[in-house]
Amino acid sequence: MQETKKPTLLSELGEFGLINRLTEKIKLKNTSTLKGVGDDAAVLYYPEKKIVVTTDLLTEGIHFNLMYVPLKHLGYKAVVVNLSDVYAMNATPRQITVSIAISSKFSLEAVEELYSGIHLACEKYGVDLIGGDTTSSLTGLTISITAIGEANENELVYRSGAQVNDLLCVSGDLGGAYMGLQLLERENQVFKVNPNQKPQFEGYDYILERQLKPEARADIKALLKTLNIKPTAMIDISDGLSSEALHLCNASKVGCSIYEEKIPLDKQTKDFAEELNINPLVAALNGGEDYELLFTVPLASFDVIKKEFDITIIGHITAESEGTNLITSGGSVIPLQAQGWNPLMNSEY
Amino acid sequence: MQETKKPTLLSELGEFGLINRLTEKIKLKNTSTLKGVGDDAAVLYYPEKKIVVTTDLLTEGIHFNLMYVPLKHLGYKAVVVNLSDVYAMNATPRQITVSIAISSKFSLEAVEELYSGIHLACEKYGVDLIGGDTTSSLTGLTISITAIGEANENELVYRSGAQVNDLLCVSGDLGGAYMGLQLLERENQVFKVNPNQKPQFEGYDYILERQLKPEARADIKALLKTLNIKPTAMIDISDGLSSEALHLCNASKVGCSIYEEKIPLDKQTKDFAEELNINPLVAALNGGEDYELLFTVPLASFDVIKKEFDITIIGHITAESEGTNLITSGGSVIPLQAQGWNPLMNSEY
Repeated sequence: MQETKKPTLLSELGEFGLINRLTEKIKLKNTSTLKGVGDDAAVLYYPEKKIVVTTDLLTEGIHFNLMYVPLKHLGYKAVVVNLSDVYAMNATPRQITVSIAISSKFSLEAVEELYSGIHLACEKYGVDLIGGDTTSSLTGLTISITAIGEANENELVYRSGAQVNDLLCVSGDLGGAYMGLQLLERENQVFKVNPNQKPQFEGYDYILERQLKPEARADIKALLKTLNIKPTAMIDISDGLSSEALHLCNASKVGCSIYEEKIPLDKQTKDFAEELNINPLVAALNGGEDYELLFTVPLASFDVIKKEFDITIIGHITAESEGTNLITSGGSVIPLQAQGWNPLMNSEY
Repeated sequence: MQETKKPTLLSELGEFGLINRLTEKIKLKNTSTLKGVGDDAAVLYYPEKKIVVTTDLLTEGIHFNLMYVPLKHLGYKAVVVNLSDVYAMNATPRQITVSIAISSKFSLEAVEELYSGIHLACEKYGVDLIGGDTTSSLTGLTISITAIGEANENELVYRSGAQVNDLLCVSGDLGGAYMGLQLLERENQVFKVNPNQKPQFEGYDYILERQLKPEARADIKALLKTLNIKPTAMIDISDGLSSEALHLCNASKVGCSIYEEKIPLDKQTKDFAEELNINPLVAALNGGEDYELLFTVPLASFDVIKKEFDITIIGHITAESEGTNLITSGGSVIPLQAQGWNPLMNSEY
């Protein structure tokens, strides 16, 4: 990143030096954070709210490829994927801890670049970085983040509350992050063959951003509150629509019907899928990393929800005995599957 | 571990299978845990207490060597090192999240062995496992744990409260975990040369246990409460006495004098150090992983503290201008150094 300046070795900094460099700019934003970094533990205080806690671990080569993922984007995304889980509880994130393991090839400047993305996400989402751990790995970069958020008791939404006849809704559009990944992979292959060839990203800025700099849906909680609608169940879409619909139905002990033609796809997602000669529906159902929210609302909310530009009704909840199905445009009924699922790719619990 | 049964591949289990196997036996123990595993986030409620949060990341080849560390012990220790940070705030741990990244070489049985140690520590310390993430790594095992605890406002002890003339105290004895590691390393070298040679551990059970199955000092909070003594500052000893004394003095803006002959060493620590022809003091000052507590109490507590078998007064707090010093048996004054410190070994913040 710094062409004129020699990278700083982490070993030149000493113990206090590294931690200070990574945390000196932190300004605590939330009244629930009594003490942030600097002691054996941070201290929080939540006298009235319920507290939600979620954690995610990202590893190099599995969740990201440093060949084409800028470190700042990676730091930002690592925070966002955790905040997305907090919003999926209909809660508001307030604090994160960040632990990283890095190989000795990393310079101070590289670690600072990663943290600049982490700090940027904290700034944007109003979250305090309250602690962490920075350690060595023999190979590769690992990032572990725990996010803490708050909600009033009556605001919390679980996966388990969906009722038969509820509408199944999704925010934004799906499959974009997966198609963005395919684009990055393709250009990376081209680059390996010919490092002088400029990457061809024109016209695909949206799907690139969906992959490299996803956002968590902080706005949906506020929107639904304005509409006076409380979801009966909610989950964030990190592993593809199929997998998350199965999770939600499993937890609620219900089935669902999802209509193929209702699944929201962006034009760039469809265009690039066509270019690669793949079905964009596969990207939406099994691609993952969209970080949209999948939720259910009572049927009575239909008239209000259908007017919302950024929410799509993709189906409805059925009895458990009817199964979890995709209804194709041709009217065929296909059981949903978490296709191609890797048991170790993402087993958050 | 299973000689007669073929190891189970994680890929045979499917998504729900793996998570269920790791979490099905969890019984929540604390009233502050409203919901544990099974949703986008766990839900906690702490209407009265202050909440402490701490996190640690352990990586294979840096923090542990699977050649001689049993997975069950590793799981246990990974929990304990986090709980130790909670106790160092004079707080009581209540919840943990556990994220692991594992390479494909791991079988279900190996992961279950690791988790059996995690569950055992949860049982012993009354802590609820409330969430986590199980994911792949290209190489090596990584364990990231976040611990959450509670304390009344007036119970919390920070690193920053030490006053001039306070007594500097330590629980238990120091250097044992480091000498246990040296013993394991030696026997591992012998094993590499001759796999048929039985490891020579006789007489060194204590230092082996200090390394492989350390305990967090849950008892010190209760003991000090009984004695009606509240520490003015406290920190846990994970990186060696020197480093932690420097942390405490730095945070409190004071100096200290530590007396060499007062530093508590177990007989096995001294015996094995003698066998290796090294100074056991180095193990205590720079070895780390003892997970004892270093704390300061007002000088007025001297008569009460000195009677306690398991607490040793090792020195006192001085003005910052006097520096942080070790006073040798011969009366020499040597500035404390976090000697041999690796900036990436352990930079918790």
